[in-house]
Amino acid sequence: MQRTEISTYGEFGLIKHLTEKFKNENPSTLLGVGDDAAVLSYENKKVLVTTDLLLEGIHFDLVYVPLMHLGYKAAVVNFSDIYAMNGDPKQITVSIGVSKRFSVEDLDQFYAGIALACNKYGVDLVGGDTSASLTGLAISITCIGEAEADKIVYRNGAKENDLICVSGDLGSAYMGLQLLEREKIVFAGNEEVQPDFEDKDYILQRQLKPDARQDIIKSLREKGILPTSMMDVSDGLSSELMHICTQSNVGCRVFEDKIPIHYQAVVMAEELNMNIVTAALNGGEDYELLFTVALEDYDKIISMEGIAVVGHITKSAHGLQLVGREGEEIEMRAQGWNSLED
Amino acid sequence: MQRTEISTYGEFGLIKHLTEKFKNENPSTLLGVGDDAAVLSYENKKVLVTTDLLLEGIHFDLVYVPLMHLGYKAAVVNFSDIYAMNGDPKQITVSIGVSKRFSVEDLDQFYAGIALACNKYGVDLVGGDTSASLTGLAISITCIGEAEADKIVYRNGAKENDLICVSGDLGSAYMGLQLLEREKIVFAGNEEVQPDFEDKDYILQRQLKPDARQDIIKSLREKGILPTSMMDVSDGLSSELMHICTQSNVGCRVFEDKIPIHYQAVVMAEELNMNIVTAALNGGEDYELLFTVALEDYDKIISMEGIAVVGHITKSAHGLQLVGREGEEIEMRAQGWNSLED
Repeated sequence: MQRTEISTYGEFGLIKHLTEKFKNENPSTLLGVGDDAAVLSYENKKVLVTTDLLLEGIHFDLVYVPLMHLGYKAAVVNFSDIYAMNGDPKQITVSIGVSKRFSVEDLDQFYAGIALACNKYGVDLVGGDTSASLTGLAISITCIGEAEADKIVYRNGAKENDLICVSGDLGSAYMGLQLLEREKIVFAGNEEVQPDFEDKDYILQRQLKPDARQDIIKSLREKGILPTSMMDVSDGLSSELMHICTQSNVGCRVFEDKIPIHYQAVVMAEELNMNIVTAALNGGEDYELLFTVALEDYDKIISMEGIAVVGHITKSAHGLQLVGREGEEIEMRAQGWNSLED
Repeated sequence: MQRTEISTYGEFGLIKHLTEKFKNENPSTLLGVGDDAAVLSYENKKVLVTTDLLLEGIHFDLVYVPLMHLGYKAAVVNFSDIYAMNGDPKQITVSIGVSKRFSVEDLDQFYAGIALACNKYGVDLVGGDTSASLTGLAISITCIGEAEADKIVYRNGAKENDLICVSGDLGSAYMGLQLLEREKIVFAGNEEVQPDFEDKDYILQRQLKPDARQDIIKSLREKGILPTSMMDVSDGLSSELMHICTQSNVGCRVFEDKIPIHYQAVVMAEELNMNIVTAALNGGEDYELLFTVALEDYDKIISMEGIAVVGHITKSAHGLQLVGREGEEIEMRAQGWNSLED
């Protein structure tokens, strides 16, 4: 494969090369890359802003994450935060710090992933920064989105008796990560061994190329359901429930047997002798939506595909209770997926 | 000095600790830190967005940059980009990646610098991300600002015969950096030697605690001057003139003896046997404003303090000419201050 050194471009040439294929499509984008700042117009909508910093060795391992997937995922996890406010992502800025071991072709792959995500979700690339790095790859993405003033959904609106809902399934991304880590160790021991990914495509995709639940947001709007609270599941269900309950000043009861889990995640957990419920509660990186709806919306919610009602909101004094398969009650602790403690 | 390990807080506790002292002051800030995204309102103004990624060892050296100064500077350089569009900065997000060698007290210092800058310029902290880092400190800041739709100043509006203006002076930040590098080397050789910073306070401050030219933007508005093009001088005058001339499709003539240079920068350059004009043209990090105004605004411009008229815009075919002290013409090359080529 061809290798072009980044230094052959210089900073401005590189930014031009990486961004010139992007075309701005949204009416709210008045000016993208190329001046001191991007210029946007949000006259009739509120502006949502979210940002993420991703560092090599902490958030991703380039031994098994292809750069195109990394670009896609880095963009999508930011879109997910905007959907989690019941908004629509419209612009992103992408900053990268790269060491000399990366070539222009590597960055082309990364930006191809960003472009794929932007095209799929209708988001414009409007700015960023490109810098050298003495160590690994550093990625910072900021996403700007829009929302109707009276339709924004916060974390603090859950009320007693509200239903707790989760989209898709939980724990798969974490099991995908465990699989990749296992194959990496096996591979390191014997270069002739090929990684064993048979019947693991779903959990791998959940880890390497997650999608944001734009479809769920769209369905909720079509059904006329406005959640009372919402967030995306990036750090694990326990951690996110803790945020919603703390900020809403409520408690919750969640039923273990209602937590949606994919069979590939179950099989993987068995192979690795891990507890799949623990993975679903604390695994992180699922980028599903966790939300609460009023009890009146029960019929509408169960008519939606891909939504599981996992429990209900209680008084604050009841705390966060997980009800086990035998009816036993366990106090939930938010272990989360805390990269600061790694 | 007390040292509290970051791990004693955990990610969410740490974010709370670092951000709880910040109060939102701007009416455009509806919601700051604490949900999936910040919520802003920009109904009657356009939204400006700029972002910067700063990496240890590339953009700063913690041997001589105090963390409070680093926080201040990291914020201010983003505000500078918003002023350079004739806008006003209103919100920032601050993301940091920190290795174990940093304590909570270190981060308190960094955020104290951010707070100082935010208070001075009237900017709200509305979000961010906190992560571990395997190596040095990584900082990503995104700044959101507002501008009147018909008052935004781009890089592409310079016209033939326009006057080229520069605020403050150029080259001082670069000479401040040279001084710090010299004293670092001296210090490394002999621990008993104290750094020699006498009569160097101005160039040190320009490097360690630069300010954004909010005052110049205010004066221009008061005088009723709308520049035809503008940008901030972060990579050196030559590089910025190249951007304005390329994007405006014009040339320029700049007079060497008109370039504003501070006497401390001159003295420092002499001590180090460097050419101060080269430093002013290519040094970077001055965060002054470079702008062009119509010839009719000449009287107004020369009545303003702290503005130097350094030349004028010509036809594109004339290229970028620097006129030396003896009247000789030199083609300007934009060497810039390119961290990718370090």
